[in-house]
Amino acid sequence: MLPPLQNDIFLRALQCQPVPYTPVWMMRQAGRYLPEYRATRAKAGSFLQLCQTPELACEVTLQPLARFPLDAAILFSDILTIPHAMGLGLQFETGEGPVIQRPVRTAAEVSKLGVPDPHHELRYVIDAVSLIRRELQGRVPLIGFAGSPWTVATYCVEGGSSRDFAKIKGMMYDTPSTLHALLTLLTQATIQYLNAQIAAGAQAVMVFDTWGSVLTPMHYREFSLSYMQQIVEGLTRAAAGRTVPRILFTKGAGSLLSEMSDLDCDALGVDWMTDLAQARQWVGDRKALQGNLDPCVLYAKPERIKSEVARVLASYGHGPGHVFNLGHGIHPTIPPEHAAAMIKAVHELSPQYHVSP
Amino acid sequence: MLPPLQNDIFLRALQCQPVPYTPVWMMRQAGRYLPEYRATRAKAGSFLQLCQTPELACEVTLQPLARFPLDAAILFSDILTIPHAMGLGLQFETGEGPVIQRPVRTAAEVSKLGVPDPHHELRYVIDAVSLIRRELQGRVPLIGFAGSPWTVATYCVEGGSSRDFAKIKGMMYDTPSTLHALLTLLTQATIQYLNAQIAAGAQAVMVFDTWGSVLTPMHYREFSLSYMQQIVEGLTRAAAGRTVPRILFTKGAGSLLSEMSDLDCDALGVDWMTDLAQARQWVGDRKALQGNLDPCVLYAKPERIKSEVARVLASYGHGPGHVFNLGHGIHPTIPPEHAAAMIKAVHELSPQYHVSP
Repeated sequence: MLPPLQNDIFLRALQCQPVPYTPVWMMRQAGRYLPEYRATRAKAGSFLQLCQTPELACEVTLQPLARFPLDAAILFSDILTIPHAMGLGLQFETGEGPVIQRPVRTAAEVSKLGVPDPHHELRYVIDAVSLIRRELQGRVPLIGFAGSPWTVATYCVEGGSSRDFAKIKGMMYDTPSTLHALLTLLTQATIQYLNAQIAAGAQAVMVFDTWGSVLTPMHYREFSLSYMQQIVEGLTRAAAGRTVPRILFTKGAGSLLSEMSDLDCDALGVDWMTDLAQARQWVGDRKALQGNLDPCVLYAKPERIKSEVARVLASYGHGPGHVFNLGHGIHPTIPPEHAAAMIKAVHELSPQYHVSP
Repeated sequence: MLPPLQNDIFLRALQCQPVPYTPVWMMRQAGRYLPEYRATRAKAGSFLQLCQTPELACEVTLQPLARFPLDAAILFSDILTIPHAMGLGLQFETGEGPVIQRPVRTAAEVSKLGVPDPHHELRYVIDAVSLIRRELQGRVPLIGFAGSPWTVATYCVEGGSSRDFAKIKGMMYDTPSTLHALLTLLTQATIQYLNAQIAAGAQAVMVFDTWGSVLTPMHYREFSLSYMQQIVEGLTRAAAGRTVPRILFTKGAGSLLSEMSDLDCDALGVDWMTDLAQARQWVGDRKALQGNLDPCVLYAKPERIKSEVARVLASYGHGPGHVFNLGHGIHPTIPPEHAAAMIKAVHELSPQYHVSP
């Protein structure tokens, strides 16, 4: 039996329920900007080894919580665990980002792929979730996550990171059925994977659609949004007597947030290129919003960080439904004290936007 | 005396005047996807040498017109000619993009910079414009261009291309007055530079704001939009008895197009992430729109290219004020026949959207 959750402000905010202050966490909060993370990674030998060793993944997941009064923890893992489990061969080359050794570019190559069993090929992730839940001792909720099918597919087809997405877009325009087959497979895999994370203890889940915004709006609907909708529809709604909120984040969504607000999810991530007041206008009160400080604000001096935090809070305005976050992952060269200044500012400045009980 | 302009459809479309069909040109139409361009560049020795030799810049400017029935020519040059003329040291390293050897990061460094004389340090560009006008023989209009102050400043401060714009954003958040001083200088330089291009024969001008969308909307207004406004206000309105239309293009502008439509310009560029029907709704009939085929469509088969061209034309719909273009520069690996298929499709399919005279 796990101890009861002591701080559920993050989960309540995601469901637009009243909270005493705006909860805060950071994308990539367990990451390279922390010297203790770099030490654990060195011990692991490689990034992939770190992901695949539940004890070490648990260690780095908890590191930022030891430093900062964050309102949520997020599983340390990677969005490419699924293609790795499908046997596409994943490597992280220093300075180059991920490399998929056996990219998928033809109908024949897609047809050979199967849906990985989360309790077998992805067992290390599920074990990490269970272990982190035990080690968290109910302090804050744990977020599970996956990449969106479109975003994961870009790596599977391009063979790694891309600037122009030439290969996957060539496939999209010339043989859309092949791409749909790959996206369908990734969607099925992602539903099973996230449901296994929920069963193991994830108390909220987030889908990262990092590359949805390289599509035209029409193709975004067809090749990214529709598959995210299938995922949220396929997810377990409650676990251990509690709703499991679902967050979707398309970086660069802009005015497409308006269409995303029709999806069957609880919250939408917002990057810094969209003003939160504008986002709230597009989305209405249908979803909570998570974001959206420019990650580069954390290069500035702490007093400037505080004034920019104030601006983001004011931009969202009064009422529930805001989870404070960066608009993208924290950069590796940010001083940890600057992250601390941001978190402190959120906790200090946000109560005025919430009704006292 | 230059011969009269034979095809002014592009200039009329930019001013929302009636035209028999939708004019078309391509960003980077004089570029690496053409084998004849690669031959001239090899002859020049380097990209910078190609820019700096008016005869060769003229040669590559005209190459795409020899192949395709384009409705406009665009000066072959680079957005970094101004920092080069300011003495910051510009190099193009193979596969790495531009490198600024003496980046500008402090108030002291900014204070040492001066506005280059377009007829002295940038003489090679102005000479190229005159030469191209003579060689064009009035076939189609010639577009002059410059980078936006914000976009050019990113290279000056970062020292080259950037992924996260950490240095310039650090400056923006911590010492905004230094950044404003640099932007003011670049704005003055750009006005003189574009006016010199107009005096030498450029019949329309375009400002490329490639990186405006990495800013929050508030900072976009303060650090990019306001300087583009100063530029369009400072430009010569007519030359040789003809209006010189002014086009602004912020890649990734999205719903900020609505604010851009208040600027004192004639047309706005639209990337492929925004639907043209949506853009027209945001902008109204105040400006012409230029765009917006996804450059990756040109990887597809010619019949698919035609159907995507049809979709873009239908998305803009009936009436004047549309200039067909890609949503970004043509990629170096596109087969020239695919560009030809796009241009042919625009000319074939667009007359139905225009009232016959």
